[in-house]
Amino acid sequence: MRGVHQILAAIESGSLKAETVFADGLDLIAEQDPDIRAWVSVNDAGLAQARRIDRGLAPHGGLTGVPLGVKDVIETRDLPTAYGSGLYAGHRPGTDAACVAKAKAEGALIMGKTVTTEFAFISPNETCNPHNSAHTPGGSSSGSAAAVAAGMVPVAYGTQTSGSIIRPASFCGVVGCKPSFGLIDRTGTKTLAQSLDTIGAFTRSVGDLGIVLAALSDRPALAEAGVPDEAPRIGLFLPPEADVAEDYTHEILQAAARAADAAGATVTDTAPTEISRRHLAIHEGVMDRELPTALMDERLHRNERLAPMTRQGLVDLWTRSSVETYDAAMRAMAEAQAGFAELIGENDVLLTFAAPGEAPEGLGYTGDPTFNRGWTMLRVPCVTLPAGQGPKGLPVGVQLVGRFGEDARVLRAAAFLENALAAA
Amino acid sequence: MRGVHQILAAIESGSLKAETVFADGLDLIAEQDPDIRAWVSVNDAGLAQARRIDRGLAPHGGLTGVPLGVKDVIETRDLPTAYGSGLYAGHRPGTDAACVAKAKAEGALIMGKTVTTEFAFISPNETCNPHNSAHTPGGSSSGSAAAVAAGMVPVAYGTQTSGSIIRPASFCGVVGCKPSFGLIDRTGTKTLAQSLDTIGAFTRSVGDLGIVLAALSDRPALAEAGVPDEAPRIGLFLPPEADVAEDYTHEILQAAARAADAAGATVTDTAPTEISRRHLAIHEGVMDRELPTALMDERLHRNERLAPMTRQGLVDLWTRSSVETYDAAMRAMAEAQAGFAELIGENDVLLTFAAPGEAPEGLGYTGDPTFNRGWTMLRVPCVTLPAGQGPKGLPVGVQLVGRFGEDARVLRAAAFLENALAAA
Repeated sequence: MRGVHQILAAIESGSLKAETVFADGLDLIAEQDPDIRAWVSVNDAGLAQARRIDRGLAPHGGLTGVPLGVKDVIETRDLPTAYGSGLYAGHRPGTDAACVAKAKAEGALIMGKTVTTEFAFISPNETCNPHNSAHTPGGSSSGSAAAVAAGMVPVAYGTQTSGSIIRPASFCGVVGCKPSFGLIDRTGTKTLAQSLDTIGAFTRSVGDLGIVLAALSDRPALAEAGVPDEAPRIGLFLPPEADVAEDYTHEILQAAARAADAAGATVTDTAPTEISRRHLAIHEGVMDRELPTALMDERLHRNERLAPMTRQGLVDLWTRSSVETYDAAMRAMAEAQAGFAELIGENDVLLTFAAPGEAPEGLGYTGDPTFNRGWTMLRVPCVTLPAGQGPKGLPVGVQLVGRFGEDARVLRAAAFLENALAAA
Repeated sequence: MRGVHQILAAIESGSLKAETVFADGLDLIAEQDPDIRAWVSVNDAGLAQARRIDRGLAPHGGLTGVPLGVKDVIETRDLPTAYGSGLYAGHRPGTDAACVAKAKAEGALIMGKTVTTEFAFISPNETCNPHNSAHTPGGSSSGSAAAVAAGMVPVAYGTQTSGSIIRPASFCGVVGCKPSFGLIDRTGTKTLAQSLDTIGAFTRSVGDLGIVLAALSDRPALAEAGVPDEAPRIGLFLPPEADVAEDYTHEILQAAARAADAAGATVTDTAPTEISRRHLAIHEGVMDRELPTALMDERLHRNERLAPMTRQGLVDLWTRSSVETYDAAMRAMAEAQAGFAELIGENDVLLTFAAPGEAPEGLGYTGDPTFNRGWTMLRVPCVTLPAGQGPKGLPVGVQLVGRFGEDARVLRAAAFLENALAAA
């Protein structure tokens, strides 16, 4: 299926109808999803809604006629929301999450609900990586990443508490964005960890991402930010945990830095600061306590109906957490957020790993979020884009990270790097 | 009905059964609530649950056998949750909010759901002030404040986005607490403004409040903090908006300061800092945007079924809000939070107004949150306690405010002041 920009332009010019776009999406899902299994449900009312748009009877906005996948931890009025859990099969909360209501108000058409791990935690559901069905698409936003990668939809919502957008985007070879914390309102999304959960999106290009974020957040400047502009100042950042990355991932990161440099960017090696060595531990201290607290009803009263990995994971987190560790982590989080200014220094963005390597083999484990957890805790905007392939021919991304609230600047740098990588 | 401490002690000693406590609560509600109208629903299964506690078959913890009122914006599995809105009459979300699951795990018995304004916003429902039924109990946590004040329940949950705990507590003559942001997990509570919503509680004494917060947050030190200890350093703070307070409210605040001083506290006049003059505007900038965003589905698609005040309020907020004002307010909020250290200085707490005066006459307006909005935005712990009466004989409270995370210190100061006021 076409990308967001192409769909908008074609519908605007009259050369394409929203109904045709949506019908194409249904065909692609019928054809591909038996193998990929990215969708929990498809919006049966979507064709009629598309026709209403074509007749000028439905909201028009920044996403008129664009089909959108919605991760199934995000509540929808017209489709069930099971949060990836057998516990909630057929659950209908009755109200659209704020981000879904907003997307509809901008003219987007809900294509359907996408597969998530149970509660966006660690226990995977059935989705495969579109590049190789023996490999995980990553998680927790498995279905959204896979659906966009396979072209079944041009954009999909994800959520990230550890690395649930950036990691699957890297594994599936698409653009993924965890914007600044709170840029997209969380109301109506199942809470996993109240201080960390962030809504974001998957697209197939940085330009599309800019259009989508601009419409969803009422910030038109973000649409322009998706188009490459002046050369950014990039800090090449090898985090303290860099040895978790495969050798080929190091090479892909270095190659991306060289491509940016060759295209005119200023690339500087950036060293970890003292507090950045504690980023992972701070994230862990916050999440370990908040996650089993948010799922308290399910954990205490319906534990036997949870997936075994969820059950065990909740025990593990709760056992190693304590109020003292949590309170210290919350204090350190504020310090680390303030300390990001020192880490990024004079740069526009940091360039770093998105994931340790290719998607792991098998569907039982969604991969390692080591290179994502710290940024989520810092609440700073992150964009990943495809930058190479691993030894099995699967995609590997790199990640750009900027200051809180500077989503436009990160998008501009991502658009620049996307161009630089295409030229390299 | 007895207070939390008395109930716990009597059940512990075997002189009282949880069943008797709960049955007393049902009797009190049957007797008083036709006039006060604090309850949306009562927990029919509560007596059976109480008997299970008496037989040792149900969870025992820090609140064993204590009946708890739950504001109806907080979701419950066994009782409907309508968020104070006709739109959601009979709605059953199917899961207990984290704070409800936690209270149950500590042995508390859900007495029922208490009346809230629609979505905890400005449109009142039917509750009266127990001290004079021609006056508002305040809002949005109207039913919780009134139920505790009337003695129908010893403790109830509230939520505060502007002044929805502290103000009704002051109007109803009870102890109210908005703890540090996030101390009590928000999962499963209807979002009104994602950066501001805070869960707290009403009790009839500071000692009871300490016991309740200790159990709900797994911080045993909070239980001890409810007992007066050494004399606190108190900054007497007249905010820039002090002229909104009635003359008698000024007198009550000064009398509270004199009582604290007489009891041995160090009381110092504390002047507004530069940024504290912007507290109200910052809160407004954040709330004006987030509130109509959180209620986007209701506002865009079911607007005609909302209460007229809700509808108009949403239009007012949305009209005066903008992304630019919001982004600036979010930046200023971080600055103001950091700047609180300068405002509080060497003091343990600030002593300030809880509300402009007595509860206004009539049930159509829940009162002015001017003296609450800034502290909510700062995310700092606040406790109000009854300190006097206005010209109509209705209660007027004063408010203590401390540093983020220092809930124990605020409780200690509140316990001290409670004693000092009783002695004065």
